Amino acid sequence: MAGDPNILSDFILPANQSAVDGSFFTFTDMRVLIGAPEPTNFKVLKASLAEFPALNGQSVSTAVLQFPADAVNPPHTHPRSAELLFLIFGSLQVGFVDTTNKLYTQTLQEGDMFVFPKGLVHFQYNVDSKHSALAVSAFGSANAGTVSVPNSVFTTGIDDDILAKSFKTDVATIQAIKAGLAPKP
Amino acid sequence: MAGDPNILSDFILPANQSAVDGSFFTFTDMRVLIGAPEPTNFKVLKASLAEFPALNGQSVSTAVLQFPADAVNPPHTHPRSAELLFLIFGSLQVGFVDTTNKLYTQTLQEGDMFVFPKGLVHFQYNVDSKHSALAVSAFGSANAGTVSVPNSVFTTGIDDDILAKSFKTDVATIQAIKAGLAPKP
Amino acid sequence: MAGDPNILSDFILPANQSAVDGSFFTFTDMRVLIGAPEPTNFKVLKASLAEFPALNGQSVSTAVLQFPADAVNPPHTHPRSAELLFLIFGSLQVGFVDTTNKLYTQTLQEGDMFVFPKGLVHFQYNVDSKHSALAVSAFGSANAGTVSVPNSVFTTGIDDDILAKSFKTDVATIQAIKAGLAPKP
Amino acid sequence: MAGDPNILSDFILPANQSAVDGSFFTFTDMRVLIGAPEPTNFKVLKASLAEFPALNGQSVSTAVLQFPADAVNPPHTHPRSAELLFLIFGSLQVGFVDTTNKLYTQTLQEGDMFVFPKGLVHFQYNVDSKHSALAVSAFGSANAGTVSVPNSVFTTGIDDDILAKSFKTDVATIQAIKAGLAPKP
Amino acid sequence: MAGDPNILSDFILPANQSAVDGSFFTFTDMRVLIGAPEPTNFKVLKASLAEFPALNGQSVSTAVLQFPADAVNPPHTHPRSAELLFLIFGSLQVGFVDTTNKLYTQTLQEGDMFVFPKGLVHFQYNVDSKHSALAVSAFGSANAGTVSVPNSVFTTGIDDDILAKSFKTDVATIQAIKAGLAPKP
Amino acid sequence: MAGDPNILSDFILPANQSAVDGSFFTFTDMRVLIGAPEPTNFKVLKASLAEFPALNGQSVSTAVLQFPADAVNPPHTHPRSAELLFLIFGSLQVGFVDTTNKLYTQTLQEGDMFVFPKGLVHFQYNVDSKHSALAVSAFGSANAGTVSVPNSVFTTGIDDDILAKSFKTDVATIQAIKAGLAPKP
Repeated sequence: MAGDPNILSDFILPANQSAVDGSFFTFTDMRVLIGAPEPTNFKVLKASLAEFPALNGQSVSTAVLQFPADAVNPPHTHPRSAELLFLIFGSLQVGFVDTTNKLYTQTLQEGDMFVFPKGLVHFQYNVDSKHSALAVSAFGSANAGTVSVPNSVFTTGIDDDILAKSFKTDVATIQAIKAGLAPKP
Repeated sequence: MAGDPNILSDFILPANQSAVDGSFFTFTDMRVLIGAPEPTNFKVLKASLAEFPALNGQSVSTAVLQFPADAVNPPHTHPRSAELLFLIFGSLQVGFVDTTNKLYTQTLQEGDMFVFPKGLVHFQYNVDSKHSALAVSAFGSANAGTVSVPNSVFTTGIDDDILAKSFKTDVATIQAIKAGLAPKP
Repeated sequence: MAGDPNILSDFILPANQSAVDGSFFTFTDMRVLIGAPEPTNFKVLKASLAEFPALNGQSVSTAVLQFPADAVNPPHTHPRSAELLFLIFGSLQVGFVDTTNKLYTQTLQEGDMFVFPKGLVHFQYNVDSKHSALAVSAFGSANAGTVSVPNSVFTTGIDDDILAKSFKTDVATIQAIKAGLAPKP
Repeated sequence: MAGDPNILSDFILPANQSAVDGSFFTFTDMRVLIGAPEPTNFKVLKASLAEFPALNGQSVSTAVLQFPADAVNPPHTHPRSAELLFLIFGSLQVGFVDTTNKLYTQTLQEGDMFVFPKGLVHFQYNVDSKHSALAVSAFGSANAGTVSVPNSVFTTGIDDDILAKSFKTDVATIQAIKAGLAPKP
Repeated sequence: MAGDPNILSDFILPANQSAVDGSFFTFTDMRVLIGAPEPTNFKVLKASLAEFPALNGQSVSTAVLQFPADAVNPPHTHPRSAELLFLIFGSLQVGFVDTTNKLYTQTLQEGDMFVFPKGLVHFQYNVDSKHSALAVSAFGSANAGTVSVPNSVFTTGIDDDILAKSFKTDVATIQAIKAGLAPKP
Repeated sequence: MAGDPNILSDFILPANQSAVDGSFFTFTDMRVLIGAPEPTNFKVLKASLAEFPALNGQSVSTAVLQFPADAVNPPHTHPRSAELLFLIFGSLQVGFVDTTNKLYTQTLQEGDMFVFPKGLVHFQYNVDSKHSALAVSAFGSANAGTVSVPNSVFTTGIDDDILAKSFKTDVATIQAIKAGLAPKP
């Protein structure tokens, strides 16, 4: 699992900037989490290349994952990195599927880590119906990227016929799933 | 998109073998395609690390894709390589979705190529109801790997509840899809 | 054999372009092959970075090789990738030489594949005096590059003396070879 | 900053094992942190290749850093990765020096992140004399490695003369520093 | 130890230049060494990316190291490459410390080579009090970079308190070392 | 031009060895050069993976090139690295050919360096008929490999017919060249 390309300098300056100080290497957007009310839906806060330009060329990024009771992070892949999840509090049921279609699952408790290998479909589920959970995930790329299975397959306009054949079901079922996932007005 | 790791030799010999000749670098399993009747379902024949050990360390592999009339290669990703498809005969509707959930589609005619970027969900569909199509795909890894969305999500035992929440539908719909995709007795 | 550098995005847009659609990922230059008369000399049609900019950062490219009866693709190397050749029709005698100066050869028949390891001298020859042959080659780099031994050594102006010493022959022989390879007026 | 080498499989099994389940991808050694008394000295708990073999080939690892009041993580480098530190609670003064000998410092508050570029000397200091601090660091390699400047230079037996010349001081000063850093009986 | 990123061309032209000739690939700055008087302090002459732009993308560079009698090249690391030193004349005591804090030393004689693994602290010392020594070092990166331990730790403004705690000594000792290393007026 | 694969440790121990000391990182085979009579033919002494196992995973190697008066290092390529040549004494005419078949040449004097980009055909020639020359070359791979054009093309048994067609000459000329290059009894 190679990371990002090597760089030939200590770090990469933003375009049109010839010098930076310590604040360039500091990311403060996560402060909003402190003392904030818990979200009502699953929510991700990223510190990756787009939000934190100093990560350019450093092959690392992180994200904070917030799971209200009963919330799920739907099946998805990261095209450019494995994910190492650290469960800070709460419990999570996690799993991934390898390229032979074997499922690996585990129920994590507070303080546990789990590694999701690069490019494989995986999910996390807060099975607890009363308490929330929070995890910090590390990635070996400044821009791991996320491919959400439900969204990329069912909300992007792929033809109903193609999906019906792909999932060996009828068009009505595909349309039902699309309707559920469509943005609410 | 980096390929496989560099090697420190011209090629990698199989374990317990100290010398090879030209036949080691030759792959003859595709001969079965010649003069064979066309398959009745979508079918892939691979020349990758598992089938052709000489590819070890060479960062390249290929596959032959056979599409009967109306056949689809369902949404999937390759975790370790982009795919460059060459349509030898027939026509294909192809598409992929990037990490911002934008769909890119094209209808290919005989002789066209299409590149599916690394790690993104993509599909191919032979929209022609009478004629078959055949493509040869090149990959920049000896073992690109395949993650089939329908199979990895719906046939590996992920809980109905997790999937119902993920796809914002009910358990009955998930079970209907699972039933359609389940291997037939 | 590493491929091209990793990229930090799904794909790389051309300079001065902020959005593309499916046609950007489509390459149609190979259509000219369909129904065209066979060439009278060995001919290569490439789909690499220069011809197909969407390959940038995707670590893969292909080429179509056309061999009239008796035609040869002279000894050459690709500095940035191995080559995986797929013989679509006809027959070919192929070979490469490793860094210990051992020759590996094979006679391929229709449907066979052969892998030429990265950076090594190799050739293909259509030994059939009546029928043409056609192959599709895959590369694990968007720009594998080609170093033709006859052309790079004998048509670029390297001194006759240096070449005579290098090939342990006399200047007259070098000049005879240069004359044969020189472009015809 | 490239990560670890690419792998040609979804993950790497431990030697002599042909199958694993979800527990192989789970790391539970951090549970000891929960409810434990705070350490009296700076302390690191790692989840890297040695402690968590499933990280092999996945180019990612993490560490938990515990800083009692007034504690320092002395100047050090990681030879194989940048470090992205996430301050979970407390405050830290952090800094690194680039290869032009420019110092970059910042005082972090709870929820801040800071990236230490690959291979550069850096340190963290809990300037608070009453409260402890805790950080989680992410690395883009399964085995980033640590080179402690005080220990590698002054506790490994490098000759006093070489060190005195290197630091432009006298042997007595070197011996004083060595004595302070030597393990206490 | 990966080198620099792959490039997709034979070489990289300087910005605003569309063609170069042989002189672009030639570096003449080392000619000053010929017949020059020996330096009175340890001195490095580099042929790396900054001095020799043709190295861009070629993953290699060199340096000439001149050691007067008794001179030392103080403990340092190269963040982006291992170093392979070739002792052209004289003798040198060399050493490096691995990430387990084990010291490896050797006394080299004329014609010897020594490899310092990537990212580890190392030094060279001309223990001969009468004769100078000269070495040529090769690096597997066009810009290996140098982190000098004395300079990066003691001349860049890191707080005396942090250093005193880091080296388990008092502030007076830190200030004494800083004074010795400070540039002389 | 990427180097060798990253490693996940400081260095790689030889199989069946659990510890090494400084001598493992030392290479003494070049001592034979000191005071030895000059060779009568062009001669290469390598310090690469095969001769110096400590280079494994360090992405660097070197070679000493000895050129008697009038001697040539015939056209060749290195499949796994660029070459940075440092001319220690004497003068050399050097050149390489890029993938567009453009020749770049230069006449080097003592102290000059020249970089031969990765994978391209290049040569060196001591045009001085009276004095020898000596160069040290650095490579960004522990095993750059060498493909000698004369030897790989004309001494390995490639059919005369294929070569005659490739070089657009007759079989007699090919046989004359083969005879000159064949090992003398």
